[in-house]
Amino acid sequence: MLQALAHARIAAESGEVPVGAVVVKDGIVIGEGHNLTRTDHDPTAHAEIVALRMAARALGSERLVGCELFVTLEPCAMCAGAISHARIARLTYGAEDPKGGAVDHGARVFAQEQCLHVPEVIAGVGAAEAAELLRKFFAGRR
Amino acid sequence: MLQALAHARIAAESGEVPVGAVVVKDGIVIGEGHNLTRTDHDPTAHAEIVALRMAARALGSERLVGCELFVTLEPCAMCAGAISHARIARLTYGAEDPKGGAVDHGARVFAQEQCLHVPEVIAGVGAAEAAELLRKFFAGRR
Repeated sequence: MLQALAHARIAAESGEVPVGAVVVKDGIVIGEGHNLTRTDHDPTAHAEIVALRMAARALGSERLVGCELFVTLEPCAMCAGAISHARIARLTYGAEDPKGGAVDHGARVFAQEQCLHVPEVIAGVGAAEAAELLRKFFAGRR
Repeated sequence: MLQALAHARIAAESGEVPVGAVVVKDGIVIGEGHNLTRTDHDPTAHAEIVALRMAARALGSERLVGCELFVTLEPCAMCAGAISHARIARLTYGAEDPKGGAVDHGARVFAQEQCLHVPEVIAGVGAAEAAELLRKFFAGRR
């Protein structure tokens, strides 16, 4: 999670919403990144998607079996869906996101009966620092 | 939608789940594609994501304001989330997907109070052909 927070700080410095994510398999980081939606002109380039795509390329498979994802903010519906498609075994997220999160709020993607793969979920790790990064970022843009 | 169906047929021929998508702005196709999850080793490479990313690159913006998306199958939670993030004005989909769809089934992403951008949705266009392509594909794999 410390590495995910480091990515979130890099995102803030480049004017991107400060969220970072890391994919780990057997203790080794195989995917990592931060929000790149503006930089890459890509509406799908949330931190989780960037990290998942990198990890899948590294493994040469679209299924990240036995991998875990650390992300500084509760994933949205898009990212929760991608986490399920990727077969992530465990999701650890930092700050909760009542406005956009879709794990413990809103669409609650993993709680849907149709959800084919549900990861173990651990919430609140590094939440204070993750939330503070976001608060500062949005305060600075006002 | 005919072009989206053509992409779905190409997907089937290459062993990918036959779903195709097209993004149109002012009557011009600016993004198109089909499922590439296996080919690209990318769990996020659903037809909609492929088409949205291409369109955003073409416009040089992560927001596809005034664009519409045609896709042969009801979008899943990941893709519905991406469609909302991309600010797609109108979504036209073909076959409904009770098992994985998240527009009119399951997570119902656009019906969530927190959903910041809700597109107009038209369902069932080209549904019979879209569903037949999927039925044949999965029957052939058994």
